[in-house]
Amino acid sequence: MKVSELGEFGLIGLLAEMTNQIDGSKAPAGQNLILGIGDDTAAWQSDGLTQLLTVDSLIEDVHFSLAITPWYELGWKALAVNLSDIAAMGGIPQYAVVSLAVPGSTEVEDISDLYRGMIELAGESGATIIGGDTSSAPLVMISVTVLGTVGQHPLRGQGKNMLTRHGARAGDRIAVTGYLGAASAGMAMLTGKLKLDTAATSHLQEAFLRPQPRLTEGQILLEHGIECAIDISDGLVSDLAHICQASRLGARIEVDQVPIHPDVKVNFGGQALELALSGGEDYELLFTGSSEKISRIKKIAPCPITVIGEIVADAEREITLVDRRGNPVKFINKGWEHFTRA
Amino acid sequence: MKVSELGEFGLIGLLAEMTNQIDGSKAPAGQNLILGIGDDTAAWQSDGLTQLLTVDSLIEDVHFSLAITPWYELGWKALAVNLSDIAAMGGIPQYAVVSLAVPGSTEVEDISDLYRGMIELAGESGATIIGGDTSSAPLVMISVTVLGTVGQHPLRGQGKNMLTRHGARAGDRIAVTGYLGAASAGMAMLTGKLKLDTAATSHLQEAFLRPQPRLTEGQILLEHGIECAIDISDGLVSDLAHICQASRLGARIEVDQVPIHPDVKVNFGGQALELALSGGEDYELLFTGSSEKISRIKKIAPCPITVIGEIVADAEREITLVDRRGNPVKFINKGWEHFTRA
Repeated sequence: MKVSELGEFGLIGLLAEMTNQIDGSKAPAGQNLILGIGDDTAAWQSDGLTQLLTVDSLIEDVHFSLAITPWYELGWKALAVNLSDIAAMGGIPQYAVVSLAVPGSTEVEDISDLYRGMIELAGESGATIIGGDTSSAPLVMISVTVLGTVGQHPLRGQGKNMLTRHGARAGDRIAVTGYLGAASAGMAMLTGKLKLDTAATSHLQEAFLRPQPRLTEGQILLEHGIECAIDISDGLVSDLAHICQASRLGARIEVDQVPIHPDVKVNFGGQALELALSGGEDYELLFTGSSEKISRIKKIAPCPITVIGEIVADAEREITLVDRRGNPVKFINKGWEHFTRA
Repeated sequence: MKVSELGEFGLIGLLAEMTNQIDGSKAPAGQNLILGIGDDTAAWQSDGLTQLLTVDSLIEDVHFSLAITPWYELGWKALAVNLSDIAAMGGIPQYAVVSLAVPGSTEVEDISDLYRGMIELAGESGATIIGGDTSSAPLVMISVTVLGTVGQHPLRGQGKNMLTRHGARAGDRIAVTGYLGAASAGMAMLTGKLKLDTAATSHLQEAFLRPQPRLTEGQILLEHGIECAIDISDGLVSDLAHICQASRLGARIEVDQVPIHPDVKVNFGGQALELALSGGEDYELLFTGSSEKISRIKKIAPCPITVIGEIVADAEREITLVDRRGNPVKFINKGWEHFTRA
């Protein structure tokens, strides 16, 4: 069978199965492991400290195009997507290492710009770039690994001092930070050379090129007793499906409640909802919890928090989309999955 | 300027300079940093524990060719090159994350083989593969990050409980573990479809396809007071040059002392010395220390330890090669550097 037939998530499942054989038995280090393959980061216990480790690669013409992505923004984004994984655990980033491959014909100035973008975001986030490797390659590839930790939360149980994909419960409300659809709208504008008014153009392009990892918000969620979160990288529906799979539950989304970015709502008409549901790359946090907890978080979060649905008991782990009257809404495009699309 | 004009080591120098600006000032996490860019791994202090972090990527047709590398061996090697960096610090590997990119047309069985190779070596080394990401790409790219630690060595000073590139002193003897030249001879055989007798063919091909990271040996060096080491990935002369640069010293190698692998010596005639000096990919440890320390290590190391020269005071940080009479030996090919060769 080809990888394209198995799909990205089938492949991850296979690798998790293969490596867990070793986690559970042979490897001594595995004893302190809290989370292996299958969440936003791996996590383990080390001398009373919970450590997080995550890696994500950006590959030219798969994850980005140099035609629409300046080098500075490429560096920013390569780090941001990893910091977003740390944010989705409620974590605090500490150190990053960078593996960079570029053609020999690349301008040194472009590499400097790339690093300036990474260093700028690292500085804002409290992370330090401490190493890496460089090599030549026929295309640009940046692989960033971030090590982080979570604060001490003495009131939470052992192994529960982080946000996970499997922490949802039936009856939990589903909520998101910020607005959705802006990043994919920004990408569509850059790709199609589409111009809107100056403010909207700048908001949407920036959402795509310079996503802001929700680190502060992730820590607030954790402090206020939230147990389940994921960051929205593939798309709202696709990432909610990961929560449903991991938590063995279903979900119902009221599409009228989905916080579509105002500039997307105004300028993208009938497409706006689809961009918000499946566009991806917004790097907002999607989380679940009781109404009470979410209300408390709303009052202190530095960004809008919107309830968009609820977690339901469902052996099939399905996601239902409904309108304000509760009628089902048809939706086909479920978000990004590697290998299954050209 | 193009990256190809600056060269790999020029580029690393630039990035070290750029990121150290942030290490020293803005980033709070930087305060516990012991080693940033420029050694085999980065290192920092965390709650009384010294942690090591390293990343290395293997890219198709740059670092390996699928025409001569089976998938199992590719997985083995992708992890081995990183474990070798941990070994060069005297470290103990703990956790690994893997970023894998392959074309959608890749067979799932091949990916399984790749992971089997990694899992096998991880099991032998006490490392656990705990996460990663997968994506589609026009070529195969594997980026492995390994987190490790070093044992407690109470007799050593603060920040000195690891092997570094800058720890050499004038008068130190230079020594290597094992034999050199086997990996590059094995690669030449596989590329040129060259056959020797069965035993030699198998030894040399295995040296290239399944390098054994010298983890035990690295820990022995550290326990016996060695302060300076590097692993031989680019080639003996090239990697010794990194020690000379970092330690601000020169070196003299007696080429007749270099432990050429017996199968290389017998079968590769006049080429044998060059393979040992600059072939690279042997993943042996190159280290420096007093004659007394090295003698003690020789007695207990599980592999041959050979003294090949000495560290000398030299502002130019030059490496001189001499024969048994002390006459200079000409040598041009200094080893692998990305971007500067096609």
